[in-house]
Amino acid sequence: MTNSQIKADVVIIGAGPAGLFAAFQAGMLDLKCHLVDALDSIGGQLSALYPEKPIYDIPGYPEILAGELISMLEAQAQSFGPTYHLGQQVEKLTPLSSGRWDITTSKGTRFDAGAVIIAAGVGAFGPNRPPLEGIEQFEGKGPGLGVNYLVKKREDFRDKRVVIAGGGDSAVDWAVALADVAKSINVVHRRAKFRAQPESVKKMEELAKSGKVEITVPFQLDSIKSENGVISHVCVADLDGNVRELEADVLLAFFGLKQNIGPIADWQLKIENNHIAVDPATMNAGRDGLFAAGDIATYPGKLKLILTGFGEAARAAYSAREHIYPNEDRHFEYSTSRGVPGGAK
Amino acid sequence: MTNSQIKADVVIIGAGPAGLFAAFQAGMLDLKCHLVDALDSIGGQLSALYPEKPIYDIPGYPEILAGELISMLEAQAQSFGPTYHLGQQVEKLTPLSSGRWDITTSKGTRFDAGAVIIAAGVGAFGPNRPPLEGIEQFEGKGPGLGVNYLVKKREDFRDKRVVIAGGGDSAVDWAVALADVAKSINVVHRRAKFRAQPESVKKMEELAKSGKVEITVPFQLDSIKSENGVISHVCVADLDGNVRELEADVLLAFFGLKQNIGPIADWQLKIENNHIAVDPATMNAGRDGLFAAGDIATYPGKLKLILTGFGEAARAAYSAREHIYPNEDRHFEYSTSRGVPGGAK
Repeated sequence: MTNSQIKADVVIIGAGPAGLFAAFQAGMLDLKCHLVDALDSIGGQLSALYPEKPIYDIPGYPEILAGELISMLEAQAQSFGPTYHLGQQVEKLTPLSSGRWDITTSKGTRFDAGAVIIAAGVGAFGPNRPPLEGIEQFEGKGPGLGVNYLVKKREDFRDKRVVIAGGGDSAVDWAVALADVAKSINVVHRRAKFRAQPESVKKMEELAKSGKVEITVPFQLDSIKSENGVISHVCVADLDGNVRELEADVLLAFFGLKQNIGPIADWQLKIENNHIAVDPATMNAGRDGLFAAGDIATYPGKLKLILTGFGEAARAAYSAREHIYPNEDRHFEYSTSRGVPGGAK
Repeated sequence: MTNSQIKADVVIIGAGPAGLFAAFQAGMLDLKCHLVDALDSIGGQLSALYPEKPIYDIPGYPEILAGELISMLEAQAQSFGPTYHLGQQVEKLTPLSSGRWDITTSKGTRFDAGAVIIAAGVGAFGPNRPPLEGIEQFEGKGPGLGVNYLVKKREDFRDKRVVIAGGGDSAVDWAVALADVAKSINVVHRRAKFRAQPESVKKMEELAKSGKVEITVPFQLDSIKSENGVISHVCVADLDGNVRELEADVLLAFFGLKQNIGPIADWQLKIENNHIAVDPATMNAGRDGLFAAGDIATYPGKLKLILTGFGEAARAAYSAREHIYPNEDRHFEYSTSRGVPGGAK
């Protein structure tokens, strides 16, 4: 170890919800953590893409905004004082003969870590752009203007005529969440059936019945009409090529994220369709002392939910502890929940 | 199906945290749930044994009281209107040729259910009693008096001299949580090392340094001294038989729970040490349409944490949906987190 290396128990790659909770859980296990994230702030997609989006499936929170959840997770981890290294990517990951890891980031930060937890979400992310001619000229006009790929603040869409394109959770959830803010909402999807949580689809369909949302299916995006560079209509076509012109101030397109796991692809892990295959019993990523948790980790039966990532992060933290202290009394690792009297059975 | 049978999508056995979250998640998947619990109120151990105990490892809650968590989970499930059948145990569970289940409770409530999720915690529970002669006469005196096995309200211990016996999470956590309420706290454990979360042990040791908690190790309970039927001292002995008398108003004993899974033992499941062995990829309990989640479920690498139970409950709910609708489009089942734009990838 050179002098410039930071000695850490655990380096966590990614400071989204899974990474933050891994830092908390590792802290509970008396491990000192450093988190590295490519973004300039913590929270991953939740902060960067949709801080004001309400989330309904965090256990114990009937509703919480994505940004609030991140603040709570940060506060929870904070009692163990993890160190954040933001705006940099981990580029090199080299195992040492001691079982520890030598880690270097794009800014040259270097760690000597007892274990590594990869909680990098989908990696670097960007929206998939719909194949519309000249769409670039409507991008980057600002929130609520032109073509948008995310909602940071619902207020940006107040009194706007919004066309939402897509058939997944994002399209449906935002149709519901913007219904009482926007002037009008028209959801365009190329199939009649939405691939989203049934309950959310129900909500959207109820809003459609009461006239608060319009659903235009099965239609695909065809083109954008504008006046003086400002969108006036989004044109959509059915399977027979019949075109309909929908009045619009903004097109909100949800066609998924381009995933790019970047340097992770070079770390000699088992990569399956941009995800890291792990052993779910330990969250081990196939190399000693290297674990993965959250959206980037995959295994049979995996559900890609934020709450699933929390459980995986906890499991990874326990495994990190076992890796660093292989010979210790393991009683506490499988103790009953902290909440349960008689945990020491 | 007879007229008296209640038709349900999912019957959830146990209305503790895992059962409540299973009801929410199943509701999100448009499944109608009925919950059965042996206790007269929902919440399982969290309500029955320690509603005022602070819990620190629920993701997004730096601290929440057990009872509050249950209220929040109840509210979260409530939007899908699950039905609760309390004060009764499921006694008979019979598979039907249709793939559905015929279920009968101790009160004669009968269900025809599409799937069953067992979230029964440790089953029926009661504290293990320390082997002290005449201990019965000090039991049942009320909270904060005589021998207690749980803390429902911290206030019950205000200005009391409390001897806590045990070496697990409960002993340590309550030593910490009662430190600023009780007159004195003395923690007795037969070993020098506590089998609890390291961070909690640290907190307790800091309180010991500042004189707020006394730690008496390695000592075992020896006997109880009383005056007019009221505890005056708890006597403890070291390994050489040297006895020390600790002034006490109340003995709080945490030696684990007697587990009794009751009728579940007769359901032809793979039972390992009072737990149901499940396939973690589906939470299937070995019989079609029968799933388990939470503390009662076990599999390689299982962590017995409340938060782990949430993930298992979600997985069980998705599996229940797959069992009931085996041929449907599965896109939504593996959709990216609801929070993620582009979930419909």
